Amino acid sequence: MADELVFYSNPMSRGRIARWMLEEVGAPYRTEWLTYEGSMKAPNYLAVNPMGKVPAILHGKTVVTEAAAICAYMADAFPEAGLAPPTSQRADYYRWMFFAAGPVEMAVSLKGFGIAVPKERERSIGCGSYESVLDALSYAVSRTPYIAGDSFTAADVYVGAHISWGLQFGTLEARPEYQVYWDRLKDRPACLRAKAIDDEEMHRQLGAAKAT
Amino acid sequence: MADELVFYSNPMSRGRIARWMLEEVGAPYRTEWLTYEGSMKAPNYLAVNPMGKVPAILHGKTVVTEAAAICAYMADAFPEAGLAPPTSQRADYYRWMFFAAGPVEMAVSLKGFGIAVPKERERSIGCGSYESVLDALSYAVSRTPYIAGDSFTAADVYVGAHISWGLQFGTLEARPEYQVYWDRLKDRPACLRAKAIDDEEMHRQLGAAKAT
Ligand SMILES: N[C@@H](CCC(=O)N[C@@H](CS)C(=O)NCC(=O)O)C(=O)O
Ligand SMILES: N[C@@H](CCC(=O)N[C@@H](CS)C(=O)NCC(=O)O)C(=O)O
Repeated sequence: MADELVFYSNPMSRGRIARWMLEEVGAPYRTEWLTYEGSMKAPNYLAVNPMGKVPAILHGKTVVTEAAAICAYMADAFPEAGLAPPTSQRADYYRWMFFAAGPVEMAVSLKGFGIAVPKERERSIGCGSYESVLDALSYAVSRTPYIAGDSFTAADVYVGAHISWGLQFGTLEARPEYQVYWDRLKDRPACLRAKAIDDEEMHRQLGAAKAT
Repeated sequence: MADELVFYSNPMSRGRIARWMLEEVGAPYRTEWLTYEGSMKAPNYLAVNPMGKVPAILHGKTVVTEAAAICAYMADAFPEAGLAPPTSQRADYYRWMFFAAGPVEMAVSLKGFGIAVPKERERSIGCGSYESVLDALSYAVSRTPYIAGDSFTAADVYVGAHISWGLQFGTLEARPEYQVYWDRLKDRPACLRAKAIDDEEMHRQLGAAKAT
């Protein structure tokens, strides 16, 4: 019997990235919906993720946290899904996943805080300036149809989700090359399925909140 | 003939992480020393890394940037070095590499800026509070001798370098479990060799600066 796959998430969270990946892989999984104030900080979940954050997955006895790590792990654990390049050809795959998990996350968070990186700090901070991150991201999405070459991979789920989020909420400048890249991804059946599941649960929760 | 391996670095940079990895792998490589104000911003290097940052490697025609991505790439490109777990067992390997590249980098940078994450932002920011990152890192280094299990991997280079840096410069709290973990890594011949090369070049540059 295949190991059970449990997915810990919240419909309004980075869990949406992981669900898209789960849907791309296509293996059966069960969602445990967690609440921000409640079950995310309960001892049995802190044993899964001591950060008390979602997303996380439990695959058999194996825990994975961090949205990017879940993408990379799932691609390798389910090779039949064809979502990771062969290990001999993973330069762009790792490069842009780590670029999104590090500099892109940080630049967007700092911007959200309203903090401009002082010029003299751009050298030491991993993301440099916000503009340099946007430019590198433009470069990344414009070289090949998908971020790691000619085929769609887990790196597109992770980078694509950042771009989609950034375009939707204005945390990334709306550059045409981001839109062209996102247009290539946004109608994938797995992406649409994942969105429908999270949207439905989100509306259910918002409706329930209104009703009280 | 094997593909040439070129390493772009500066002795006072995150390039030290990548050099340690290169020395662990043991394949021959050539260092191109770049200067912060000069060659890092020259067009031929911006073609390698549009961020104008080090480290980067060029392996044949393949570019890799981002210190963590270089570690992951090298481990896969040189499987004979035995520095990556089999692809079916990469949960902890990816989990802690992405945790270090994302939340650890960000928490330490924010601390360096003197910014405490406001309580109401801890939920949305990927690193949560500085303390929660330290606690998760304590958990990560205490479960198994190495960060991804019983054997040393590229994830130890990347996470270990963050811990070593943090202990040395006080950007991480000096917790005993960090020290125990670092003591397990610090005398590895590849780590010592890498440090010697960067220290020598650093002293040469500082001496040259003094002499002028
Ligand atoms: N670095 C993590 C960040 C995860 C994260 O910050 N999740 C938020 C929701 S998007 C969360 O669970 N927050 C709850 C909290 O911090 O209390 C990742 O990429 O997965
Ligand atoms: N996210 C990158 C950060 C690299 C980085 O910030 N490098 C610094 C030195 S440690 C640099 O090259 N700074 C030069 C500059 O920004 O002008 C990584 O992890 O490799």
